[in-house]
Amino acid sequence: MSDCIFCKIAAGEIPANFIYQDDEVVAFKDTNPQAPVHILIIPKKHVANILEADEALLGTLFGKVKKIAASQGLSEKGFRTVVNTGDDGGQTVHHLHLHLLGGRFMQWPPG
Amino acid sequence: MSDCIFCKIAAGEIPANFIYQDDEVVAFKDTNPQAPVHILIIPKKHVANILEADEALLGTLFGKVKKIAASQGLSEKGFRTVVNTGDDGGQTVHHLHLHLLGGRFMQWPPG
Repeated sequence: MSDCIFCKIAAGEIPANFIYQDDEVVAFKDTNPQAPVHILIIPKKHVANILEADEALLGTLFGKVKKIAASQGLSEKGFRTVVNTGDDGGQTVHHLHLHLLGGRFMQWPPG
Repeated sequence: MSDCIFCKIAAGEIPANFIYQDDEVVAFKDTNPQAPVHILIIPKKHVANILEADEALLGTLFGKVKKIAASQGLSEKGFRTVVNTGDDGGQTVHHLHLHLLGGRFMQWPPG
């Protein structure tokens, strides 16, 4: 999608400090962090949201959490993963992305 | 796990109103709902958390969101999906579970 900011980030057209990347996924810091660690993990392929993603892509995306959480020192204390879908979910960028938040106690309710 | 409440729910040993079930997954209402719709989706197999789950299981689990969200009338307005891991994440039951929340606007930060 030529007008998608996350596609541009994934393609290296907009600078971002990748904390992880492979053939399918990139991860970078949220520019408006809500916790000491707040990472976005996205597929390189444009998929609008979780409703448009197949099981394989969802497995690939969520399967990166373990490695990325470990790289951020979150494995022991824990973390929260959040995916927003549509207006009620608070989704603002319509390219599937997984929020990984940690480094503090995450409260309840989750928004 | 003989002492796991979610294993007992999945096995039908503790009553719960399943809103969805198949060979791998069951879904039921959270007993302390944080939104008008607050569903838990869990694998039948005991897995402690997202760190212990393989890609296939994560794909299976998150792949159910589309169907279950639709069954709850959330597809159009949207929803939030949350997985808590460990203490900082606020995980209280150590059997992997996905929170599906909707029916209201979900605020930010997510806890």
